[in-house]
Amino acid sequence: MRVVVIGAGILGSSVAYHLAMNGIEVEVFDEVHQGKATLAGAGIVCPWATKVTDPEWYALYAAGARYYADLVEGLTQRGETDLGYGRVGALVVAEDRKELDAAEQRIQSRIAHAPEAGNVRRVSAAEAKRLFPPLREDLDGIYIPGGSRVDGRLLAAAMTRAAVAAGAVLRHDHVSLELREGRARAIRSDGSPIEADEIVVTAGAWASQILRPLGMEHPVRPQRGQIVHLRLSGTETRSWPVLLPMTSHYMLAFDDSRVVIGATREDNTGFDYRVTASGQAEVLNAGLAIAPGLASATIIETRIGFRPAGDGYKPILGRVAGMDGLVIGNGLGAAGLTIGPYAGRLLAQICMGEAPDTDTSPYAPASA
Amino acid sequence: MRVVVIGAGILGSSVAYHLAMNGIEVEVFDEVHQGKATLAGAGIVCPWATKVTDPEWYALYAAGARYYADLVEGLTQRGETDLGYGRVGALVVAEDRKELDAAEQRIQSRIAHAPEAGNVRRVSAAEAKRLFPPLREDLDGIYIPGGSRVDGRLLAAAMTRAAVAAGAVLRHDHVSLELREGRARAIRSDGSPIEADEIVVTAGAWASQILRPLGMEHPVRPQRGQIVHLRLSGTETRSWPVLLPMTSHYMLAFDDSRVVIGATREDNTGFDYRVTASGQAEVLNAGLAIAPGLASATIIETRIGFRPAGDGYKPILGRVAGMDGLVIGNGLGAAGLTIGPYAGRLLAQICMGEAPDTDTSPYAPASA
Amino acid sequence: MRVVVIGAGILGSSVAYHLAMNGIEVEVFDEVHQGKATLAGAGIVCPWATKVTDPEWYALYAAGARYYADLVEGLTQRGETDLGYGRVGALVVAEDRKELDAAEQRIQSRIAHAPEAGNVRRVSAAEAKRLFPPLREDLDGIYIPGGSRVDGRLLAAAMTRAAVAAGAVLRHDHVSLELREGRARAIRSDGSPIEADEIVVTAGAWASQILRPLGMEHPVRPQRGQIVHLRLSGTETRSWPVLLPMTSHYMLAFDDSRVVIGATREDNTGFDYRVTASGQAEVLNAGLAIAPGLASATIIETRIGFRPAGDGYKPILGRVAGMDGLVIGNGLGAAGLTIGPYAGRLLAQICMGEAPDTDTSPYAPASA
Amino acid sequence: MRVVVIGAGILGSSVAYHLAMNGIEVEVFDEVHQGKATLAGAGIVCPWATKVTDPEWYALYAAGARYYADLVEGLTQRGETDLGYGRVGALVVAEDRKELDAAEQRIQSRIAHAPEAGNVRRVSAAEAKRLFPPLREDLDGIYIPGGSRVDGRLLAAAMTRAAVAAGAVLRHDHVSLELREGRARAIRSDGSPIEADEIVVTAGAWASQILRPLGMEHPVRPQRGQIVHLRLSGTETRSWPVLLPMTSHYMLAFDDSRVVIGATREDNTGFDYRVTASGQAEVLNAGLAIAPGLASATIIETRIGFRPAGDGYKPILGRVAGMDGLVIGNGLGAAGLTIGPYAGRLLAQICMGEAPDTDTSPYAPASA
Repeated sequence: MRVVVIGAGILGSSVAYHLAMNGIEVEVFDEVHQGKATLAGAGIVCPWATKVTDPEWYALYAAGARYYADLVEGLTQRGETDLGYGRVGALVVAEDRKELDAAEQRIQSRIAHAPEAGNVRRVSAAEAKRLFPPLREDLDGIYIPGGSRVDGRLLAAAMTRAAVAAGAVLRHDHVSLELREGRARAIRSDGSPIEADEIVVTAGAWASQILRPLGMEHPVRPQRGQIVHLRLSGTETRSWPVLLPMTSHYMLAFDDSRVVIGATREDNTGFDYRVTASGQAEVLNAGLAIAPGLASATIIETRIGFRPAGDGYKPILGRVAGMDGLVIGNGLGAAGLTIGPYAGRLLAQICMGEAPDTDTSPYAPASA
Repeated sequence: MRVVVIGAGILGSSVAYHLAMNGIEVEVFDEVHQGKATLAGAGIVCPWATKVTDPEWYALYAAGARYYADLVEGLTQRGETDLGYGRVGALVVAEDRKELDAAEQRIQSRIAHAPEAGNVRRVSAAEAKRLFPPLREDLDGIYIPGGSRVDGRLLAAAMTRAAVAAGAVLRHDHVSLELREGRARAIRSDGSPIEADEIVVTAGAWASQILRPLGMEHPVRPQRGQIVHLRLSGTETRSWPVLLPMTSHYMLAFDDSRVVIGATREDNTGFDYRVTASGQAEVLNAGLAIAPGLASATIIETRIGFRPAGDGYKPILGRVAGMDGLVIGNGLGAAGLTIGPYAGRLLAQICMGEAPDTDTSPYAPASA
Repeated sequence: MRVVVIGAGILGSSVAYHLAMNGIEVEVFDEVHQGKATLAGAGIVCPWATKVTDPEWYALYAAGARYYADLVEGLTQRGETDLGYGRVGALVVAEDRKELDAAEQRIQSRIAHAPEAGNVRRVSAAEAKRLFPPLREDLDGIYIPGGSRVDGRLLAAAMTRAAVAAGAVLRHDHVSLELREGRARAIRSDGSPIEADEIVVTAGAWASQILRPLGMEHPVRPQRGQIVHLRLSGTETRSWPVLLPMTSHYMLAFDDSRVVIGATREDNTGFDYRVTASGQAEVLNAGLAIAPGLASATIIETRIGFRPAGDGYKPILGRVAGMDGLVIGNGLGAAGLTIGPYAGRLLAQICMGEAPDTDTSPYAPASA
Repeated sequence: MRVVVIGAGILGSSVAYHLAMNGIEVEVFDEVHQGKATLAGAGIVCPWATKVTDPEWYALYAAGARYYADLVEGLTQRGETDLGYGRVGALVVAEDRKELDAAEQRIQSRIAHAPEAGNVRRVSAAEAKRLFPPLREDLDGIYIPGGSRVDGRLLAAAMTRAAVAAGAVLRHDHVSLELREGRARAIRSDGSPIEADEIVVTAGAWASQILRPLGMEHPVRPQRGQIVHLRLSGTETRSWPVLLPMTSHYMLAFDDSRVVIGATREDNTGFDYRVTASGQAEVLNAGLAIAPGLASATIIETRIGFRPAGDGYKPILGRVAGMDGLVIGNGLGAAGLTIGPYAGRLLAQICMGEAPDTDTSPYAPASA
């Protein structure tokens, strides 16, 4: 059996990794694009605070978080330790006490079934600032010990590398699809066809244009996010929790004295790969309002990512009915780094003809 | 009348410029891609030394060079002077005197009809080195006063800017094509259609994947070129001639103490956007062998371009028979910066229903 | 006669250029430092609106502006045209009408003696916005046709290149000074002495550490400026005036669809070469408040410059009394790109034993 | 007690770390310079193969390697794990079998006293290629299991961070020294003095200019090294041994599919911070000659470092006689990343008035 995976972001690299671990022959095509969501995205693994209430989706979100322990252990055993992963906890803060109370209630009701979230507790403004030193002095918070962060760029690279070490082949080229006798056929940029029993399209925001030649109108659009990376030279930041201020802007820190503030959510920009004056100002102003202690931090880069945004928050996962050998994974949106590795495993199971650990039928792609 | 141009490289920006100058409504879509040939390419305008002998193609090549004077004058009148253009002459050198003699004969027979080439003459090794100081001391040459250089990146930006100043609209987004009732229809990345009477595809190496949904097998493939840019800080280089050593590696200089050595010609790399160890070594070794005086020059960058390489050297220019409202320009290969502006003008004439100044029928695209 | 110039910013490159034009043997040492003011600074040549009233200093400031026409002509004759120079006019705007009235009065009283300022006139908000399209809609202004802009980086490179073409030698190395028998002696980084009749220290913010081994306490400190460069892709910006909003933040545009917003003025940061979160936010917020049309512009880079800030605004220009063969130029502060080329000419005259065109005695360095 | 450390490279950061661990008040000044040796250098810890025979120096070299285990353990306990450190082994290869035999003899005689070198053994060309896959097919080798590599940039950052976590203060500014009543006094860039009981100058190639105002002629010069970093995307490289081809060019790999080829050794370039055409070609040609499998690797960057090169290979370590409170560490040359952390510990002991673990008197700086 031979599988072609198109796109080696968090989802595609996980598909490749899980297939290769099972001895399947995999060829991964990863085109150079600017604005890949996985490379830009800040990785927060903390599903328990989300405001989204759909139970099916929440179950998937929580399962994604739960799977991280296994994933990290598996990669570590293969020598892959450079993942930017840390179970550093999450700190939920809010200006409005009622909003914080509501968040606490939401979290408490969920973690009953999620021992991995740890012993969630309310913390005073002083303790919150002790946990995340640049924070304002007046913000109470909720601390979730089981929250964690991961660097999507490193994690995807590690899964791809582990796949290659297990026999997968990685190519940096464009792949086109065409319809041939009721099947999708993959074609290299030199026009030659690629032999495959299964084609897995995990191309994120680029999937729509890849699927169009098959006559499919794939409902995923690019949503631009601008994410600012700061450095606090000499400062030990590795144990700082993820900061969730109950707005669309969040913060998290990495081992190398780096703090990340995210992110704009810009629809209708298409694939316009740019850091804009207003986007940068929005993110900096939001960050400094919550964490004024970042004022003198160094701006080291602003990353641009095109999140694959579908209709609502709903993922697209599974086999395309009406067309043999075509599997799609997409639309994870802002939950991509939490759900991605687990969803990749589910898609690998589908390719191998197994029943996926979580039923993906609610997320089935439209039939061809 | 409303025209959509897909791709704003040297060819597409020229189409847009010439249409906008004629009052046509133009919308230019220029997706961010790494490896655009125009942005990477070194611009040599010196057709008279080419070894290619096909008379039709040579006529187009020579016409492209001849058109430059008009083009530069027109842009200058519109305030666009930052083109990197200079009529600095070209210096043809060869290790083998017989090869140089053959080149001289070739050049002389051609410039009878090309007064713009100027007074071509044989130069001694000493004079050659005076003209291009880093040169080896033992290479005789042929000096062609009318040779010139241009910075493709600046020229395309200037034509686009002049088009926008004349009313064209520039967007940075992906455009897909689909077949709809016998016509090509252009679609934005958000899925909405774009109204257009004519669609001009000048997308270079990316054209094949754009045209595939129309069922067209467009015979253009990416050919990777790696081009090294050096700086000779403090050195006046602006008047140095283009250096043509009768191999695939050439050199040219720009105003800002910059010297460019080009280029690898790598087929079968697909869209693999990378500077490679062997590619960099190849270009540097070739350059230093001819011009050892560049040894201590600073490497400021290596550009990667995917040349749109067709079957042989033959361009593709014109209307697609069997499909209304679709015009294609492509396949100029290494001659792109010479022919591009002129070919863009021809395509603009075709869009406007005029007879092009040069008959493009030998270059007609395959019918749909 | 042999002169060593330490520092090839706007001032040092001008000294070298004027000396070399006069046949003097010059060796220029330009160490690689991050944060050179000339490379970062935005070049506004418009002295007539300044709030500083000291008549001697204003005379120097105005003379600096007046000299630009000669300078540009001289460089152009030598083939140096890539200076980023444009006589694009300046637009003074203010939120407060009284402040604008005061500025107008100030300008009118000065331009009586400065015909090069052109026909200064009040412009309506609508006309102001027509001149500088991203501007807010409610700001009246004063238009000064003779205001101009220049790219300090390009101008200094051009003067250095012209000096080298006339025989000067350019080296990229550190030079130390030491006191030897009552004279300053210059030493290379390999410890060997450099022969020189005159040593000119034009090292900006780095001069204090260079002069310290001579026992001199040079009163110049680094003042950090963060300057944001934006691109308005496809937009013709080359004719936009310099925008002076009567605050410390200004804007100006260059040929390549680039708009610059400057700048922070940060004392007591030392040589801390960094773009900071608060500095970037300050500049962006100031720019967007005046010119909201820049919201979707691309941030292409933020430059950091250490302005050489002396006591007050007063320059330091001339020979050091009590020590043979040592000339200093420094402390031009924010006026550096206006005064620099002219002041360099004065220093060259001093080196050659001529009386400088403007009396520099009010700016004499402290004696050794 | 209060110590000022000037320069936070591998040596200065180690001084600060060891002092701060002992509760000493430390202020570290680290100016932004391009070309810091620690940030550029490739870190090989494998003293046993060196051709240098001086017994005293070899003892220090070996002690530096031996100390690594303790160092890494100490940092790990403080949470610093991102060091790029790996005990991956070293592979010595040579074209000439006699040279390899001599190397083997040399190594064997040394490791009698160095159990940490592990079980050294001869390996066939096939096994050598298995260990380091891009290697040529015809090179026998010697495998030294105890050889290791470290990323100097990460290690210095980690030691500095650990020092700051223990109370040290890190500043990014220039410090000048001046002679005041027989003592060195440190001065900030704003001219204010810095209180200190001890001043430690660990400024590498920049130390000579820092010490000159004290009347000291410090015999250390910058030696430029150009080091090429390659990526083998998708390839597991983390366990590849350091490759020592018995020339001045070496190779080593890091966790992130990165392979480094080093390095030029350029004297008399001063602080000329540039990647040159010939330097890049030299390193690439040397690398590809030994390891042709790197041909298609991606060039990701070329780092420039100014090694502090003294007279011969001899380090300078200790207190300056004749001047109270001044300690110098420098001149480790190519052995810097091996010896640096250990030497920093010795200097910390000297500052604290302790007898250093290794007698540094053979390396005493010249008296003032």
